[in-house]
Amino acid sequence: MRPLVAPSVSVLNLGIGDFAATARAGGARAIHLDWRPPAADGESAWALARLFGDDSDKDAVGSRIDRANREAMSRLLDAQPVLVDVARRASEVWPDLGRTILHAGPPIEWGRMCRPMRGAIIGAILYEGWAGTPKAAGKLATSGEIAFAPGHHRGAVGAMAGVVSPSMPLFVVRNAARGNIAYAPIADGGGRSLQFGVYETEVGDRLKLIQRFIGPGLKRALSTLEGGLPLKPIIAQALHMGDELHGRTTAATSLVFRAFTRPLLDAGLDRRTVVAILRHIQSTPGFFLNLAMAAAKAALDAAHGVADSSLVTAIARNGVETGIRVSGLGERWFTAPAEMPSGVIVPPYTAVDANPDLGDSAIVEAAGLGAFALGAGLGLVTAVGGTAEAALDLTRDLDSVTLARNPAFTLPALDFVGAPTGIDVRKVVDNGVRPAIVTAIAHRQAGLGQIGMGLARAPMACFVGAVAALARALGAAS
Amino acid sequence: MRPLVAPSVSVLNLGIGDFAATARAGGARAIHLDWRPPAADGESAWALARLFGDDSDKDAVGSRIDRANREAMSRLLDAQPVLVDVARRASEVWPDLGRTILHAGPPIEWGRMCRPMRGAIIGAILYEGWAGTPKAAGKLATSGEIAFAPGHHRGAVGAMAGVVSPSMPLFVVRNAARGNIAYAPIADGGGRSLQFGVYETEVGDRLKLIQRFIGPGLKRALSTLEGGLPLKPIIAQALHMGDELHGRTTAATSLVFRAFTRPLLDAGLDRRTVVAILRHIQSTPGFFLNLAMAAAKAALDAAHGVADSSLVTAIARNGVETGIRVSGLGERWFTAPAEMPSGVIVPPYTAVDANPDLGDSAIVEAAGLGAFALGAGLGLVTAVGGTAEAALDLTRDLDSVTLARNPAFTLPALDFVGAPTGIDVRKVVDNGVRPAIVTAIAHRQAGLGQIGMGLARAPMACFVGAVAALARALGAAS
Repeated sequence: MRPLVAPSVSVLNLGIGDFAATARAGGARAIHLDWRPPAADGESAWALARLFGDDSDKDAVGSRIDRANREAMSRLLDAQPVLVDVARRASEVWPDLGRTILHAGPPIEWGRMCRPMRGAIIGAILYEGWAGTPKAAGKLATSGEIAFAPGHHRGAVGAMAGVVSPSMPLFVVRNAARGNIAYAPIADGGGRSLQFGVYETEVGDRLKLIQRFIGPGLKRALSTLEGGLPLKPIIAQALHMGDELHGRTTAATSLVFRAFTRPLLDAGLDRRTVVAILRHIQSTPGFFLNLAMAAAKAALDAAHGVADSSLVTAIARNGVETGIRVSGLGERWFTAPAEMPSGVIVPPYTAVDANPDLGDSAIVEAAGLGAFALGAGLGLVTAVGGTAEAALDLTRDLDSVTLARNPAFTLPALDFVGAPTGIDVRKVVDNGVRPAIVTAIAHRQAGLGQIGMGLARAPMACFVGAVAALARALGAAS
Repeated sequence: MRPLVAPSVSVLNLGIGDFAATARAGGARAIHLDWRPPAADGESAWALARLFGDDSDKDAVGSRIDRANREAMSRLLDAQPVLVDVARRASEVWPDLGRTILHAGPPIEWGRMCRPMRGAIIGAILYEGWAGTPKAAGKLATSGEIAFAPGHHRGAVGAMAGVVSPSMPLFVVRNAARGNIAYAPIADGGGRSLQFGVYETEVGDRLKLIQRFIGPGLKRALSTLEGGLPLKPIIAQALHMGDELHGRTTAATSLVFRAFTRPLLDAGLDRRTVVAILRHIQSTPGFFLNLAMAAAKAALDAAHGVADSSLVTAIARNGVETGIRVSGLGERWFTAPAEMPSGVIVPPYTAVDANPDLGDSAIVEAAGLGAFALGAGLGLVTAVGGTAEAALDLTRDLDSVTLARNPAFTLPALDFVGAPTGIDVRKVVDNGVRPAIVTAIAHRQAGLGQIGMGLARAPMACFVGAVAALARALGAAS
């Protein structure tokens, strides 16, 4: 067969990959560059071009965004989240809560909710005593007597279903740098827990133990610590101990166990309560995740509301849709259908049993942890089915969508560079790299709980929508 | 200038590196291979040649050694070290101890001891009440009334000076796989501690606190745990949490803190004792090192005494000499002058203030931890002045002197391969790679304590001596 191209020809192929193979088959050296035009469509491409900075013109739209992002990033990086209290019940924090149940992700009505979220809500209704059976609880949920709202709308974040009902205790995390506050419920156990949609009796019993002993006990222990418990040093240390602070918080949980032991002994609690609290922390490897989430929320809320900023201040999933918020674009959610996570699913279950991406926990990715720190969390990589090298590559890739490397959160295996932090919606659309999210995988039916662990990606459409809105807001739309 | 060699010539240079530079200057492509003839001298080279296996002849000396090493390695890798007790005092363990003070490393008399070891012995004499002042203690030490012996000769290992005196409590670690027992004292604090040669009042007070409360309290807590506290799972987990288990045991200490909390609460101790014990563990980041050392000693003792084996079963330094023991060569120490560690020294001190390599702690390297697991202990690399890449390279290098990779101790950043484990004296001499040791650096004067952290190498002469002895023992000497 006669070569199509002379063997001395070298081909650099852009676009359709098959052309490179053809050239190679013809005997040429061919390198395929995985390049796509920036932005998903023509409109975004034009908007993007106007939204990027022009150093020669400080009044240009791009320069305004860059300045706003510097301000937003300094607020994000300067945050000092401190666990200052444990509220006895959510209704004490928000006296107007009534019969509202908070949930994860952007707003969603009962009829569209995924089954694990419905399961968690049924469990919360039973726990509140508003109904006596799961069936009656389901009926009440559809009756219109219960209101539903995203936790984010109250400054709260919750893992998986993210359900907060009025009598649940809440961690109170204050950003000492700016005084703003974020909330999260106390983790109610491992995979067979309320937040995975399980509402069996044991789950209800554990929620009551949390309400009666664990919440109040932690509150009293905290009161012995002047100024509360700073979370940033724990997160920084845990990153040096194999955690990425989303899928794995084993080290951070161990550190917080240690940090609470002395205050629990000093708080005048009876020995049984101390033992019950420490046992709960010890048997809940994800205990620290809710604190990491509240810390991330407190840091990102401080960075929210900077006019013109293109910084992502929240990523949240309700199991049906994934939504993002952007610092300069107010309270609006930019949503798209939630994607399926991929990873390791524990037999007998398989990928078809998985619920789409769920939970407020992606707030930690928005703050530069989780997948953005996976290079630190090598303890996790086997659990999500990856290799150490792939984990390091992912962290390097995510550098292309972020605004800074966090000097406070360094990654040992990458020679102590900071975790890539602060997602810029412009960069996501421009580079075509979607933010990755480490995530637990829930069974798509209620009551079956966690079935795996993996990675998901935030949908590109969220970022395309945000870029278009930013262009319109700044008068840069076509 | 006319080229010395034609530009098309490629040079592979062995031996003297300057030749490669000359070839390059002459315009040639030159690669220098850092190769030296195996073994340090002609005699060793001939001995070595006879000591390496010949698969075709199972009666050959090398084949006998290989078989012995397989037996020794299976004992080392199968070890199950368990903390089973805390002895109230060393004199209970060894009723014949009398006025003997145990020390680190191979045997050494008072007159040749380094100053930090003398300082620790003075501190131990004061603590025992055998003298009332440092001056009187020093006089007693020289009087001949006090005997000195290596801890290793009693199955005990101690960090730095490694001093054990009769009324010190001891950790009792039993290798459940074979029933043999190893001992280590309880870490008496950080850098300004007895084992670094400091004998000020605070050090004596802390030793008494350990004797009266911490040792007995830990003993009672342990008695509530049926079967004791298995150390292998803690070590394995800590390797996934940034520890290499010599210079950094932060994670393991945190895990052991957690493991002891519940037993301490269950043991019926008064609250003040519990708080004092937990505070001591929390304020001693190296608390777990002594347990890691006793675990390593218990595992290596099981592998000791296998006829014909060339496995190193101990590396120990007394601050003047470094010694090794070999499984098939009995109780003999192969010694050479201790080397100077290099690393990070805290100002105002500099390298001239450092004491030569000191302590029994290199037992953990002999068991495949410490420098051999530095690829796991990335949390340590900045403390010893290295980079993550160099740490990974060191672990890969040490593979060339070891007999196996330990499947129980895996290294995340090297994609979960096992730590290179089991030093073969033949391989050290053959490859010219000296085992590396992570080490704290003591001031060479008594009383000043720890001044840094770094890496040392075991001297080649120890291994050359062992190879020669093995050749003689096996009738393979020239």
